[in-house]
Amino acid sequence: MSLIVMKFGGTSVATPQHMQRVADRLIARHEAGDEVVCVVSAMGKVTDELVELAHQISEHPAEREMDMLLTTGEQVSIALLAMAVQARGADAVSFTGPQVGIMTSANFSKAQILAIDAGCVRDALDEGKIVIVAGFQGRTPDGQITTLGRGGSDTTAVALAAGLGADICEINSDVAGVFTADPRIVPSARLIERIGYDEMLEMASSGAGVLSMRSVEAARNHQVVIHCRSSFDDGPGTIVKEQDPSMEQAIVSGVTFDTSEVKFTIRAVPDQAGVAARVFSRLADHDINLDMIIQNVSEDGATDISFTAPAVELDAATAAVREAVAEIGAREWIVDEKIAKISIVGAGMKTHPRVSARMFSALASAGINIDLISTSPIRLSCVVAQEEFEEAVRVLHTEFGLDGPATDEGE
Amino acid sequence: MSLIVMKFGGTSVATPQHMQRVADRLIARHEAGDEVVCVVSAMGKVTDELVELAHQISEHPAEREMDMLLTTGEQVSIALLAMAVQARGADAVSFTGPQVGIMTSANFSKAQILAIDAGCVRDALDEGKIVIVAGFQGRTPDGQITTLGRGGSDTTAVALAAGLGADICEINSDVAGVFTADPRIVPSARLIERIGYDEMLEMASSGAGVLSMRSVEAARNHQVVIHCRSSFDDGPGTIVKEQDPSMEQAIVSGVTFDTSEVKFTIRAVPDQAGVAARVFSRLADHDINLDMIIQNVSEDGATDISFTAPAVELDAATAAVREAVAEIGAREWIVDEKIAKISIVGAGMKTHPRVSARMFSALASAGINIDLISTSPIRLSCVVAQEEFEEAVRVLHTEFGLDGPATDEGE
Repeated sequence: MSLIVMKFGGTSVATPQHMQRVADRLIARHEAGDEVVCVVSAMGKVTDELVELAHQISEHPAEREMDMLLTTGEQVSIALLAMAVQARGADAVSFTGPQVGIMTSANFSKAQILAIDAGCVRDALDEGKIVIVAGFQGRTPDGQITTLGRGGSDTTAVALAAGLGADICEINSDVAGVFTADPRIVPSARLIERIGYDEMLEMASSGAGVLSMRSVEAARNHQVVIHCRSSFDDGPGTIVKEQDPSMEQAIVSGVTFDTSEVKFTIRAVPDQAGVAARVFSRLADHDINLDMIIQNVSEDGATDISFTAPAVELDAATAAVREAVAEIGAREWIVDEKIAKISIVGAGMKTHPRVSARMFSALASAGINIDLISTSPIRLSCVVAQEEFEEAVRVLHTEFGLDGPATDEGE
Repeated sequence: MSLIVMKFGGTSVATPQHMQRVADRLIARHEAGDEVVCVVSAMGKVTDELVELAHQISEHPAEREMDMLLTTGEQVSIALLAMAVQARGADAVSFTGPQVGIMTSANFSKAQILAIDAGCVRDALDEGKIVIVAGFQGRTPDGQITTLGRGGSDTTAVALAAGLGADICEINSDVAGVFTADPRIVPSARLIERIGYDEMLEMASSGAGVLSMRSVEAARNHQVVIHCRSSFDDGPGTIVKEQDPSMEQAIVSGVTFDTSEVKFTIRAVPDQAGVAARVFSRLADHDINLDMIIQNVSEDGATDISFTAPAVELDAATAAVREAVAEIGAREWIVDEKIAKISIVGAGMKTHPRVSARMFSALASAGINIDLISTSPIRLSCVVAQEEFEEAVRVLHTEFGLDGPATDEGE
């Protein structure tokens, strides 16, 4: 008997008919002798509809009230899914995030999980029930309702799997697993059957949408094995787990892209100690997640600072930059919204120093200009013009030998 | 400075525009210097839509899961209403029933309030906030989410008013107050400006829909003054409070009707001690709320038992009657779905013994046949054929001098 946590996203429970299919899968697993915990998101576009409703009422609704509003989406899902399981004669019980003791910080709209007391889940499993838990939500120690932000349901699933000591955490979505590149861009992209946490983390952080970074991070911290698979078929999916060190590691496992960022450049920043710190504290004051940060070589006692930030935070970032520029006496600043970040990720890069040179020359041969570069031990990222990103992904996918036979995934 | 609990029903918050209007009223009251707690129901038809969704999934959804589902309706309302108040620059905070410590029994779908620990409401009021609380819901001591059943939001409002020691509990709805009869049936019905708890309780129990019986009962038990008024205008409404004994009491304050019941008759029941008890324990086993119960005079050692029950419980009641009839060896049973119960209510009836005679002859003069009769010290009820109920209400309204000038309420 295994204990499995199965997570289903919004598209998997978009309609009552979809719910019935998910119920069938839960029951099949339960009847096969496993203990089953299901984490579920809000139905289809419900969250978007609630956000839209809020904006009809208020231009800038308070985050506490947004969390109060949005958590109803998952609560509807768990109740309906429990009913669907019960209607098939199996025993089920639903719990909200607060009910299963998912304790979070009080950062409304992007709370961090602090602790889980999954006692009521364990009790319900012991009674032979299929347990259905609302993703994306928790509560502060003093009882405020919070949401976990983007990818929150994945995080709930992984955290519950860790808290319960589950054997596996299955993340079901409309994607068949993790691919060497987005099959919509690269028709010859291949499914990756196994990937380590570190590589998966870099893939997620650089644009592969299938798993949220936070959930992979949580899985790595608690050694939770993740199985990414399609809600709609029985394909093999992708297993994310600790890399076996004896295994030969691909130099490059995948190519990712991210078109959701903008680039700021602050020109002629006085090259004095502490100036960069002041710029970035301003941005931190506005709660902006920076991604790439590059400071150019100094010339004539002045330097340029560039960074990328999420496009959705453009307004806040602009305000922060304006303040910083005034404060430090920089000459000017510009923002470029038409960028894309292309990354190659691979655990084998650590031992193959020539990878960066290969990446840059492959892009150069295709006539693609590189703007910013950033690296980690197992990732290389370049910012390019947004109009060139598809070409860049294909070039790199081919360069590093990832092309397989063309699949249907791109259709 | 007064502390006021203001309750708004579903039609008062049916759309974002309605929410804005309610927000205006809350703020006006707050700016006038009062402490304001608002209890709110689900928007418009949301509860019905959720019920419909549940029935697409399951024919007989478990009540625990229905409560999990339905409580989301009020939660959406409180979040949006808090946003609407905040968007106008006033300070507000929303709480679910579980959050404000509305502790209930575990009778899902019709839980009883056991206790209220309104500490977080008191704290928020002390911080100058308008406090918005979800009606209709609570939680069991072990954290299960419950609903209070029909009229639950009124009950929440009264219970909160009692728990907080509020000066008044304002029940705002699409009705201007309590009338001497339903103005849709009797255009000359008049608004009752003041009414005692006992009379209001009889009015509510006999069909006046404006307040639920449970909320009036709770108000009486805790001496909470209720002010029933329209959400949409500033009419005087109706004050429900302890009757001043020095005040002259109307013989009949109002005429009510109820067409939501069915009548069962069990024929030729053996007239032995304990037989009636067995019939009614069967019904209690099925959790059926009985209303009128009449046992006819015994003839030849056999008797007839009639009772009315809510039409929505027809199936369960039928099953119970079938069991009981088999058990006690009665001859037959019949059910009549086409009945109406007409009641006259008045505190002055206690001291005017001829009221019943006047009621019966007025109906007889109009050719209306009386089927069952039941009485309380301040109420007289008759069951008549459903097709005659409007005529019966009008006849009695005139007979007891309640007609005023015709109003527009019936339009």
